[in-house]
Amino acid sequence: MAGDELLRRDERDVRHWDETVDVLVVGFGCAGACAAIEAAEAGARVLVVDRSGGPGGTSINSGGFLYLGGGTALQKALGYEDSPQNMFDYMMAACGPDPDEALIAPYCEESAAHFDWVVARGVPYKESFFPGAHEPFHSDDGLVFSGSEHAHPFNQIARPVPRGHAPRTIRDKGALLMNKLIAAALGAGIETAYQSRCDALVQARDGSVLGCVLTTLDGERCVRALRGVILTAGGFIWNDAMLARYAPQLLKCQAKVGTETDDGLGIRLGLAVGGEAIRMEAGDVSLPLFPPNELRRGLFVDRHGQRFLNEDVYFGRAGETILYHQGAHAYLVVDDSCFLRPEHFPIQVAGVGETVEELERELGMPEGMLQHTVAYYNEHAARGEDPLFHKDAKWLAPLATPPYGAIDLRAEAFVYPAFTLGGLRIDPHGRVLTNASEPIPGLYAAGRTTSGVAKHGYSSGMSLGDGSFFGRRAGRHAAAGRG
Amino acid sequence: MAGDELLRRDERDVRHWDETVDVLVVGFGCAGACAAIEAAEAGARVLVVDRSGGPGGTSINSGGFLYLGGGTALQKALGYEDSPQNMFDYMMAACGPDPDEALIAPYCEESAAHFDWVVARGVPYKESFFPGAHEPFHSDDGLVFSGSEHAHPFNQIARPVPRGHAPRTIRDKGALLMNKLIAAALGAGIETAYQSRCDALVQARDGSVLGCVLTTLDGERCVRALRGVILTAGGFIWNDAMLARYAPQLLKCQAKVGTETDDGLGIRLGLAVGGEAIRMEAGDVSLPLFPPNELRRGLFVDRHGQRFLNEDVYFGRAGETILYHQGAHAYLVVDDSCFLRPEHFPIQVAGVGETVEELERELGMPEGMLQHTVAYYNEHAARGEDPLFHKDAKWLAPLATPPYGAIDLRAEAFVYPAFTLGGLRIDPHGRVLTNASEPIPGLYAAGRTTSGVAKHGYSSGMSLGDGSFFGRRAGRHAAAGRG
Repeated sequence: MAGDELLRRDERDVRHWDETVDVLVVGFGCAGACAAIEAAEAGARVLVVDRSGGPGGTSINSGGFLYLGGGTALQKALGYEDSPQNMFDYMMAACGPDPDEALIAPYCEESAAHFDWVVARGVPYKESFFPGAHEPFHSDDGLVFSGSEHAHPFNQIARPVPRGHAPRTIRDKGALLMNKLIAAALGAGIETAYQSRCDALVQARDGSVLGCVLTTLDGERCVRALRGVILTAGGFIWNDAMLARYAPQLLKCQAKVGTETDDGLGIRLGLAVGGEAIRMEAGDVSLPLFPPNELRRGLFVDRHGQRFLNEDVYFGRAGETILYHQGAHAYLVVDDSCFLRPEHFPIQVAGVGETVEELERELGMPEGMLQHTVAYYNEHAARGEDPLFHKDAKWLAPLATPPYGAIDLRAEAFVYPAFTLGGLRIDPHGRVLTNASEPIPGLYAAGRTTSGVAKHGYSSGMSLGDGSFFGRRAGRHAAAGRG
Repeated sequence: MAGDELLRRDERDVRHWDETVDVLVVGFGCAGACAAIEAAEAGARVLVVDRSGGPGGTSINSGGFLYLGGGTALQKALGYEDSPQNMFDYMMAACGPDPDEALIAPYCEESAAHFDWVVARGVPYKESFFPGAHEPFHSDDGLVFSGSEHAHPFNQIARPVPRGHAPRTIRDKGALLMNKLIAAALGAGIETAYQSRCDALVQARDGSVLGCVLTTLDGERCVRALRGVILTAGGFIWNDAMLARYAPQLLKCQAKVGTETDDGLGIRLGLAVGGEAIRMEAGDVSLPLFPPNELRRGLFVDRHGQRFLNEDVYFGRAGETILYHQGAHAYLVVDDSCFLRPEHFPIQVAGVGETVEELERELGMPEGMLQHTVAYYNEHAARGEDPLFHKDAKWLAPLATPPYGAIDLRAEAFVYPAFTLGGLRIDPHGRVLTNASEPIPGLYAAGRTTSGVAKHGYSSGMSLGDGSFFGRRAGRHAAAGRG
């Protein structure tokens, strides 16, 4: 058993503590920054450590979205009527088949207040709505639909309102968000240590976590955390061996959303002291075909030429469906009237034809299947109907303008950006839970080190959203002293 | 943190050992019996403990199948030509998308010898082939197709041969298998302790496992295991809380294949000392429609009336597909010519109609979809072809004899028997591995406490098969003393 896999150290094996703080935060991304701010503002002495040379983590390179609602100031200013219940109804439907109600309920209830808190830390939002596809790549608009709220069946379950809150900048939205949060944390008086990796948690005989063993440039340092350790060290998309064992589907994705430190170490530290890591197979898988939205007029078809999903869902829902349920084998069939080249990612064309029959043959599909799919779709689209998947009428029009083509959505041909969604199980205070649903005293976690609000049906902003939200709660709970 | 969740005890907290053995086996099902036999026959002093009042575990109530091949004596006697490579090719295709080659390779290589070993322990097999559906409920035939070997696409990848080896008895095949193995273990001189639950593993500071803490009717007992502890304590199908967190799909299954002690304790013990539990979402889900095989002439359709799978696959493949990939919502569409009532499980009829159109309406499907599905199928079936899913020609005939009907395969209407397939990661010697792929000295596991050869695409006999196979390897390796 390799020494570096002993991620847990018995307190009796700690000869002396090199340093003592109240709260130790492992990882300085979005969840860690929010945990640190709350703990420091509550009066705790806070040390934030990070393996890399500075703060920011994966969050600083992210899209910077927060998925918030329930009536945020920005939603209200733009005339969107949301409520905690309406947001809850959407998330319970979209994040299934096994939504985590214990986390989703408080997340929705306090979402509007959380937005105010973020704004109060200096993150600016423009009071404008972005009407395009999910990512406002070319604008600094503040609010956008970043999920499947307006798509069937979710539009039948909850009133569709936009909940993607984007910082006011055209480029580097994640950097703007993080730089404000980092400044707020530093301003609150936290201490930091970079190039410092937490390689073990120190555990007492009763199971409680007392501190960390850090590997630093100056060697090993044992840090006592009187009120708690908060693990916010990212997911495991950069650990291929872990992906192979837990989430082999994600290995097929050609783009990893994360940094090299997203190697699962935070999750493994929690496991080593008795925490549970759940839903480790889950991942967010984007299908960045859109914009342009015109492509939503096309048809997702499987290898047999059958449709399987309404094309107006959020691109994360489409990616998840294709990767996990269609064997990473699908196409988008288009005609000349709706084909525009995707704006942000390259595509490969799997086939073209002057007729659907010719395209079907070129794709090697069973004779007649794609022809029937298109004919059935066209017949109903002409009447503004999609009886099969209920795509919104604004995207419905017969595909009847040759040539026809198929964009190749097989994982070997299309770049699916992905990150992991499985991780440590926490309670609504951010406490890491054992299999018996007992919190491990002194141990908290947030962000992608945890299994958060979205195990399926990811919408943009849910990861920074739950990381910041439960990071704050963990910081507050830890700073208040052990329960 | 509840005391009963401290599944790991530091060796410094063990005041004295109540007993010392060479090898301690936790659980007396099929994997435990085989581990005990091998360890005892190698000269080790072996203690087998079980939580229940006697031996047998879940295995004793099972179907008793072993999935074996590569040219077993029984395959040869019945004229079936198999090879380790042919078996390997099938398993690597069927048990994907992420087959565990490290386990599958030795399993195939030594499969024929493993069968001889089982026979030598007194388990009888009749030299006869059962030509019916997967389970010879009403015969004592020895060999049967218990997977999808003859179904597309597997019949294109490997030569189809039967590999389900069934003990010679009409009823209680699992009991016959287990009673012979239990007798062999007792005959080899093992000791046993029933009503004895392993509640903690004792771990040394270097990570190695030294023994167990047992809870018995006489209180706590600490047992030193000089050469190793072997965890063969079953899966977690009887732990609803764990299912909800790890494998929520399986909660929908109305029948649990296991005993109440399949509550995941063995897996959690391994985790507590640094082992990895992988593929915890995976499960075997049977669709016990067959026999009668006549129903294979029907059509699996999804909620939209589209086909999604050839109907001649093994019933475990069909169940897994419906539960994990069709949202547990499907039907089998039949006509009067192929409908016979399933022999072993009750069914509900979701709809009937004098025409397919009427049936489609009754099922609430989009107008025309089921009609097209049946028409397309019929057109090709009349020519002996199934261009969509390549069902074998012997099951192909147009569905054209009214009335038409749909058997309800939604999880709320159909009884899916299920058990878990995720668990501790082991190497080919049965050693429990850490995340760094290092074995934990002194700790072994086998059977459903582990993630074995089949994480997907389960075929009958793979669970008792890998449990007995790697149980033996664990027993041998442990008895030989630490490497």
